[in-house]
This record gives sequence, C-alpha cells and structure tokens, in this order.
Amino acid sequence: MSFDRTKIRWNGWGWAAHKDDVGAHEAVWTWLAGELGMPALLATPARPLEELTLQPSAMSDEDRRGLRAIVGADSVRDDAYERAFHALGRSYYDLLRLRAGDLSTAPDAVVYPRATKEVLGVLAYAAERAIAVIPYGGGTSVVGGVTAARGKFTAAITLDMSAMDKFIEIDSVSGIATAEAGIYGPVLEKALQAKGFTLGHHPQSFEFSTLGGWIGHSGAGQGSNRYGRAEDWLVGAKLATPRGLLSTGDFPASAAGPRLKDLLVGSEGIFGVITEATVRVRELAQESDYRGYLFRDFQSGAAAIRDAMKAGIVATMLRLSDAAETRFYRAFSQVGKRRTVAARMADLYLKIRKFDDKTCVLIAGFEGSGSEVAAERKRFASIVRKHGAMALGRGVGERWRQGRFQAPYLRDPLLDRGVGVDTLETAAGWSNLNALYAATAAGLEKAILETVPRQGARGIVMCHLSHSYLDGASLYFTTIFPRALDGDIAQWRTIKKAATDAIVANGGTVSHHHGVGEDHLPWIVQEKGELGIAVLRAIKATLDPAAILNPGKLLPQ
Amino acid sequence: MSFDRTKIRWNGWGWAAHKDDVGAHEAVWTWLAGELGMPALLATPARPLEELTLQPSAMSDEDRRGLRAIVGADSVRDDAYERAFHALGRSYYDLLRLRAGDLSTAPDAVVYPRATKEVLGVLAYAAERAIAVIPYGGGTSVVGGVTAARGKFTAAITLDMSAMDKFIEIDSVSGIATAEAGIYGPVLEKALQAKGFTLGHHPQSFEFSTLGGWIGHSGAGQGSNRYGRAEDWLVGAKLATPRGLLSTGDFPASAAGPRLKDLLVGSEGIFGVITEATVRVRELAQESDYRGYLFRDFQSGAAAIRDAMKAGIVATMLRLSDAAETRFYRAFSQVGKRRTVAARMADLYLKIRKFDDKTCVLIAGFEGSGSEVAAERKRFASIVRKHGAMALGRGVGERWRQGRFQAPYLRDPLLDRGVGVDTLETAAGWSNLNALYAATAAGLEKAILETVPRQGARGIVMCHLSHSYLDGASLYFTTIFPRALDGDIAQWRTIKKAATDAIVANGGTVSHHHGVGEDHLPWIVQEKGELGIAVLRAIKATLDPAAILNPGKLLPQ
Repeated sequence: MSFDRTKIRWNGWGWAAHKDDVGAHEAVWTWLAGELGMPALLATPARPLEELTLQPSAMSDEDRRGLRAIVGADSVRDDAYERAFHALGRSYYDLLRLRAGDLSTAPDAVVYPRATKEVLGVLAYAAERAIAVIPYGGGTSVVGGVTAARGKFTAAITLDMSAMDKFIEIDSVSGIATAEAGIYGPVLEKALQAKGFTLGHHPQSFEFSTLGGWIGHSGAGQGSNRYGRAEDWLVGAKLATPRGLLSTGDFPASAAGPRLKDLLVGSEGIFGVITEATVRVRELAQESDYRGYLFRDFQSGAAAIRDAMKAGIVATMLRLSDAAETRFYRAFSQVGKRRTVAARMADLYLKIRKFDDKTCVLIAGFEGSGSEVAAERKRFASIVRKHGAMALGRGVGERWRQGRFQAPYLRDPLLDRGVGVDTLETAAGWSNLNALYAATAAGLEKAILETVPRQGARGIVMCHLSHSYLDGASLYFTTIFPRALDGDIAQWRTIKKAATDAIVANGGTVSHHHGVGEDHLPWIVQEKGELGIAVLRAIKATLDPAAILNPGKLLPQ
Repeated sequence: MSFDRTKIRWNGWGWAAHKDDVGAHEAVWTWLAGELGMPALLATPARPLEELTLQPSAMSDEDRRGLRAIVGADSVRDDAYERAFHALGRSYYDLLRLRAGDLSTAPDAVVYPRATKEVLGVLAYAAERAIAVIPYGGGTSVVGGVTAARGKFTAAITLDMSAMDKFIEIDSVSGIATAEAGIYGPVLEKALQAKGFTLGHHPQSFEFSTLGGWIGHSGAGQGSNRYGRAEDWLVGAKLATPRGLLSTGDFPASAAGPRLKDLLVGSEGIFGVITEATVRVRELAQESDYRGYLFRDFQSGAAAIRDAMKAGIVATMLRLSDAAETRFYRAFSQVGKRRTVAARMADLYLKIRKFDDKTCVLIAGFEGSGSEVAAERKRFASIVRKHGAMALGRGVGERWRQGRFQAPYLRDPLLDRGVGVDTLETAAGWSNLNALYAATAAGLEKAILETVPRQGARGIVMCHLSHSYLDGASLYFTTIFPRALDGDIAQWRTIKKAATDAIVANGGTVSHHHGVGEDHLPWIVQEKGELGIAVLRAIKATLDPAAILNPGKLLPQ
C-alpha cells in the first residue's frame, strides 16, 4: 500500500498531523460568533475512540475463516480502529455521529482484497452466505455512500479497495492509462506525471479519494471544464460482481449498442465493485494561469461564464463565488489583521467603480501550451470586460490553487466549537440557474433560522458556480450555522430537506458530483422516474441477485 | 408531414427524381470494368414493384380495427407500396433482396402515430395481442436495424415515426432544443437555423434520416469532432415503452446515479420508441473553411490528426482518405476528360516532391467565429507541415462539401450493372489503428478475390479515417467488386464476415456509427461479454416484457 491509512483521522478530515491554522487564532472565533449572532462559541469536542464501545462483530468464526481463505488472514480485520474508521463516510451528518461516538453502523469486518480474483471470490462467498458488502475507496463520501449498513442481512463487511492500488500501464500513443481502482489520487497522478501525462481529476477530496470512487459516484474534479467528468475520461473498466466479471470495451467510440461503461459511472457500488479502470489521459500542461476577476453581481459573472462556454473557450476552471462567499472569505482572511492604507485605498477605488456589497469574485484557470493558455485567456478577458468585470491579477488565483484542498480541514475546528457546516450542490440549465440559486439559498436561510439554538442566532449561506457546460452549470452551496446541540441531527435533516426540496422544485439535479448514497434517496424516484428506477433495479438484480452490495444506497429498498 | 415519403425510392437511395450523373457517362463504366478486371459490366436491373407479389398481410381484421381505434383509420396502412417500402433498410444486403423482389420481410401493416400517447397505446395493444413492433425513423439503416422481422410473433407492424415531426421549442439561453423524434434532418436544421442555431449533426444520410434514428443507433455526423456524437448532444428524451413512458432528466450534468439517457443511445428500438428528444444546439457558425492537404502516406496523415487531437485543436471534420480512395476518386473524376497541360505539370510537380502512389488526401473543416476558424486552421496547418503535407487550398474542400450527401446515390447505378458496393466502419485506439487498418483491408481483399465471378476479376478496397478522438479514431471502408450474380448474398456474407472477423480480432468495435441491427449480431456477445448482454436483456425484460419490440436486433434471440 502506498497510502498509510493510519495517518488519517478516523472521525474527521485528512491527515491527523494537519496543523489547525484557524483554531490557533482566537480572534477568528470571536468574529465568527458575532457573524452567527451568538454571544460566544461553545467547546464541543469529539469523543475519542478509546472511550467508545463497539457492538461485538456479528461475523461468525466460520465466515471469518471463509473470508480469510480467500484473501489471507491479514486482510480480514475487525479491530476497533478498522471497524470505527469504516463505519461512515465524511459528511457533516456522518461526523455528527462519529464525534458523538455513535458507531452503530460499524461493519463486522473490513476485508482488503489484493486482486480482482479475490474480489470475485469475496463477492461469491458473501452472496452465498448472505453477508452485505460495502465497497469502499477512500471513504470520503459526503452523501452516505459508504455507510456500513447491513440492510436485511445479519452481517456486513466493508470491502476496502486500498490494497488494489497498482498503476498497471500507460499507452502513450493512444493516451490511455490503466490502474487498479483502489489507487489514491496523488499516487495515480505521480505515476502519470512521471510519464509526462495527467488525468487532471482534482476533486476537493483528491488526496484522500480513489479512482474507483471517482467513477462510482460520477465525480467531477475542479478542472473538469478541461479534463472532463468521470463519465468523460473513463474509457473502460472491470466490474467484479457476484455473477462474475463484467469488462466493458475500451474503444474511443462505438455504436455497438448502449455503452456498458456508462452504467458503471454513478453506480455507487450497488452493481459490483470496480477493480480496474482505463482512463483517457492528457499530456502534462506546459503552462497554467489562474487569476481573479471581480464582477458587480452574481448574474453578470454567470452570464460571462455562459458566454465563454458558448464561444468554445477552453478554460480548466471557472469558479464564481456569490456575494456572500466573496464577502465571507475576504472578512475571514482579514480577521485580526490591521487594515493597511493600501487596502483602504483599494476599498475606496472599488466603491467609486461601483463594486458594492453585491461584488463577486471569479477565479479562472487555464492550462495547456503557452500559446493555448495565452489565447484562451485573452478571449476570456475580452468576454468578462463586456460584463463589466475588473481584473484582479494572478495573486488571488494562485492563492486559491495553493489552498484548493484545504477547505474541508475547516470543518473539524468548527465542529469543535458548536458550529455546523455543510455543503451541497446541484446543476441546471442556464435559463434555470438564477431561479434555482435564489430558491435554494432562500430555502437554506429559512431552515437555518428555524433551527438555530437561540433567538438572534443566524447562519451564513454562500454559493459558488463551480462547473460549467454549454447548456448549464452547477451551483455549490456552503452553509455555516450554530448547532442546535440538543438535536443537531434533526437540525441537519431540516436544513437538508429544505435545500433539496427547493433544488428539485426548481429543475436542479439532486447532485452534480457528490452522488446519491443514503442522503439523496428521498428524492431519487422523483428524479429518475418509477420506470427509470425499475431499470436500475433490473440491472442490479442481474448482477447482484442476492442484493448483498451496498444495501440502502442509490435505490430505495 | 413536412417530408414527402412518396418522392423517395422504395428499393434504392434517396429522391426518385435524383439525376444519375454517373450512369449517363458510358466511359465511366468502361473504365470501371477495367479496374475490376471484367471484360464488360452486365445490365442487372431491379425488379419493379408492379411485378412483385406480397404475402397477404397476416394482421387480423380485429387487430386492424384495434390499431385504427388508437391512431385513426388513415394511420394504419397495408397497401403494397407501404409494406414493400418498410420491408428492409438500405444496406447493400437489403438492396440485393429488394431489387431481387424478395419482400418476405414486409410488415403486415405500417402504423403512423401522431403523438407519444398514441405510441404508448399502440405498444400496449401490441404487447397484449403479441404483435411485433418495428420502430422506424427514416429507414436508412445499413445494418438491418429496421428489417420487419416477426420473431416469434404471427404478425409484425412497422411503427413509422415520420408523422411525429414537430419542432417543439428552443431555449436559446441554455442552448437546448426539443423536437419530436420523427423529425427529418433538414426539417430540424431549418427550424433551428431560423433561430440562429444548429445541431450540426450531418451523417451521410442527413436528408433521409431522423432525430430518433440518430439517437437509436448511436450516430455520428460528419462534423462530430465539433458538434459531437448523439451521446454527446443528447440532453434528454422520452421513451415510450410497453410498460409506460420513461423520461430521462435533462440536466447539463448529474451524479444522481447512472444516466438513463445513455441507455437510449444505441438501444435500436428494443427497449422502447424514442418519441421526443432534447438536444444541445450551438449558435450557427459565422464562418466555415474546408480545405485539402496531401500526405505522402496514410500513416503520416493519421499521425497529424492524432497530434491535432492531442493539441486540442477544434476541427469540425478531419477526413483522411487512404491511397486507394485518393487514387480512385481522382481517377473516377477524370474518366473521359482530356488531361490539360496544367494537370500534367501538377503531376510532375507532385512526383518531384515525392508524392507517389501512396499519396493521401485529407479534408479539414473548421467552423465558428472568424477568429476561431482562422486560429484553429493555423494551428492545424503548422501540425500538418511537420508531417510533410502539402496544402491544396479550399477548392477540394468545397467540392467535398457540395457532394457530402451524394455518395450513396452511386450505389444504385453500380447495382444496375452487376457491381456490388458495401461500406463498413470501426474504431480503435491510436496505437491499434495501423494494424487494424491493414488487417481489415487484407481481409476484405482476400474475401473479394475468393468470391469474384471469374478469374482475373478483382475488387477495390478503400478506406478513410472519418472521425477522431483524443484516444483513437474510426476507419470507414468502402469496397467495390463484381457481383457473383448466382450467389450475391453468399458473396456479401463472406466479405462481411472476413472484414468483421478482422476488425474484432484487431481490437476494433463492430461499429463506430452504423449500429448493430441484425448484421453485426454474430459478434455482439464477443464485444459486450456474456454478462454485458445479460444486463441489456434485463433492461429489455423490464421495459418490454413481451419482447415485441424490434425482434432480432442488437441482442441474440
């Protein structure tokens, strides 16, 4: 294994050794309390693993032996750390439970296969013995995609793919590469970059998520405008199922019936386990240029992105923060710092140019050859000018890039202080986007006000347009709110429901890149239709007749 | 109906009134006989419809009344013309049968629904009464996709969608348009272009094929490099099935489980009937520029296209003819004309520059704004120079464009003179392409030599690289050969089998854009795998439990 699992947090985000930059500055917390209308923030630490008691493993000795015969004794584990680590994913809802010490969803054992053959063996065994199997990549799901739910079965095992992390080969003429699906983002990129290539898939979870996970939940990296979503860069894959191995073709294009690989993208482990994938890779970009622009409001920024898409401009990323997000990150970064004369002059200049409290920041990233980057950036600059934007230069872009994987680390210190933070996202056509934005933000604000722990308390609702297409874009919302400590799970449910109801009612998809998991199940029939769900059930019944795979995810039970 | 079916040929290609430019020049036939090693070409006319006898319709009066009650009396037809017209598609194999007067596959009736509700009604009725239903768009399938096969049923109806050809709406902000699926190419483009938009989907069958057909067989237009394949531009669709209506979402992107729309692309009418589709459209290009380049051989031309794809150059079309195709079309266009001094000087110049009998023509098309076209064309020109190509200017490009839909008209006059002509296509990764090209061409040549009607006769095998991708490209083969008149169907089978065996053995897909139909069925299990086929069967069993839809297509019985 090239990735050391013991160095990451079992009940929080990322490396255990990560330095808490925020928690160290008391001024930040005083400021945040004020923003949230709270007199002060409370200390709400997580319960340590040592304090907690797990239900005994429900796995029989016979089954433990049976599984060990397939994968080896070392590869079937049921110590407290392994079971707790794999109990849940990394959503806000998951963290509330983990931090409170609720390990009721801990699997009965964690199995680490090392080859497709072993995965097939485990699945066949589990199907025969009626054991639920939860496929697990990096475990960073934020929609309940890896909750070790038993469903109707008496025991559940998590099938952790992290030992299947070999980089298999690259065909540099065709520009495709094959790797085992348990390979982590940085390990895959290191192998590709050594050959002069990149997949360019950089979700915020990049350091802690795997190739198989990206495909399984239909992910999109921050640079998907250039590099594509999982459905775009996936060429073919192997899916181990209880019925045997399904290998999709790996043609650049085909009209030989519906493409089987499309069924794997977003299948969330309910049809089988992706054990190997072949992906389209690109030569490493010679240049990259990330820079910022200021828009007078969200609508003009979104219109500029839309125009850029229609003009065929190839950006790597176009990320537009709304006024609330722009204001929040600016204020956040300035807490406790003395305002310089230059900063005050800059504020005055913006005021004169009529950039008021509706001002929005856009970060635009371009990658490719020097001439490509220069040409696309110039074309984009001419479009943003038409929408009244002001160029901010590369500083803000480079700062965004340096911090691109850092935001999730903020959640643990917030949770330590009685503050909740959740994110959700959607996508819709350009003509729907403003209404969807307004309705979702309003739904979130209302639900937060209904659930705050005291009069006068309030939340912060912010959004950015994160990915764009010819016909529409995605919206990514972040909410920060004072936790209702006597019922923080009910509070989360209220907020989640309000937002998702608003999304669905306004023509948005329940998810643009997080997936369905358990958390979006209540809306999936509405989105896919009864007949669509029947089709997905039929596929599952064919590949997983005993329905052992990832019970309770994607399809209503 | 905006398209007059009575004006097209029932047993050949296109408009009945189309002028036969080739047949009029006797010199062409003398030349062609020589090329094929034949002393002369024979007159082999098609049998006229008036001479033929159809089996009586197997449809009971009760069912005729039942169907009329759903769609109206005028919309259920069983006259000889309608039944003969819908008996088969437009492949070489189909034409052999139609011209010989074999109407054994004629449907028992042709039904013309006018609304999704009527389609649902017909399907429910047919399922109850065990009548096979063959969905039919423009009927231009060249793989046996619309053969009115009864399967296990006693009667078969063709469901002709051409009365469902309404353009429904355009959302010009999002850049998406919705139309009924029976709309013909030119009707759809006219409606879009009136609003300043285009779908840009121009298969060779453009004038005679429909939106639903393009999706159903997973088509790719000549300009798919810019405008995409059906799977790329399809946003969402309605599929009428015997189990009811399946509506896919129409989000620009979604991670809410596997995308249902992907199951419709390439489904060939076996899951249901596509009645409406929403497609991604683009603003009409302000400029277009098609021009030619000469390469010293096929490999250097293919390498240039590969480099252009890797560099992200957005061409509309890059079409590279191999040496045989380059030579054939050049000779064909010069038959009977006096060679001018200028032409002879040009030949001499080419010889000096070492463009010999391996020379290949590439046509490169660019569309977009003036600056886009200029920029992309310039980037492309610099790549082709590196591969030793010579620019030919716009004349050859514009001539190709003017004749882009004309080639299929050549088939009827060839068939009238004892000459067979068939096309087939495939796709594979760049690293496989040269081997696939060589093996397929060799397979075709060998099979033709084995089946020619006399010693010394031979065929012409030519190819072009027709569509390109980051990771590979498609190859499109055309073969012209003297027909073995005492067994021309067996001859076709031998040639088809040799080519497809070679394709599959060399890593190509059985089809890049024609589909599976009946003709590629023998190879489909090999391409999709047993488990893949089981998945497709399960989808069919869910949507079409009585298996009435398009029996014998896509899935082995």
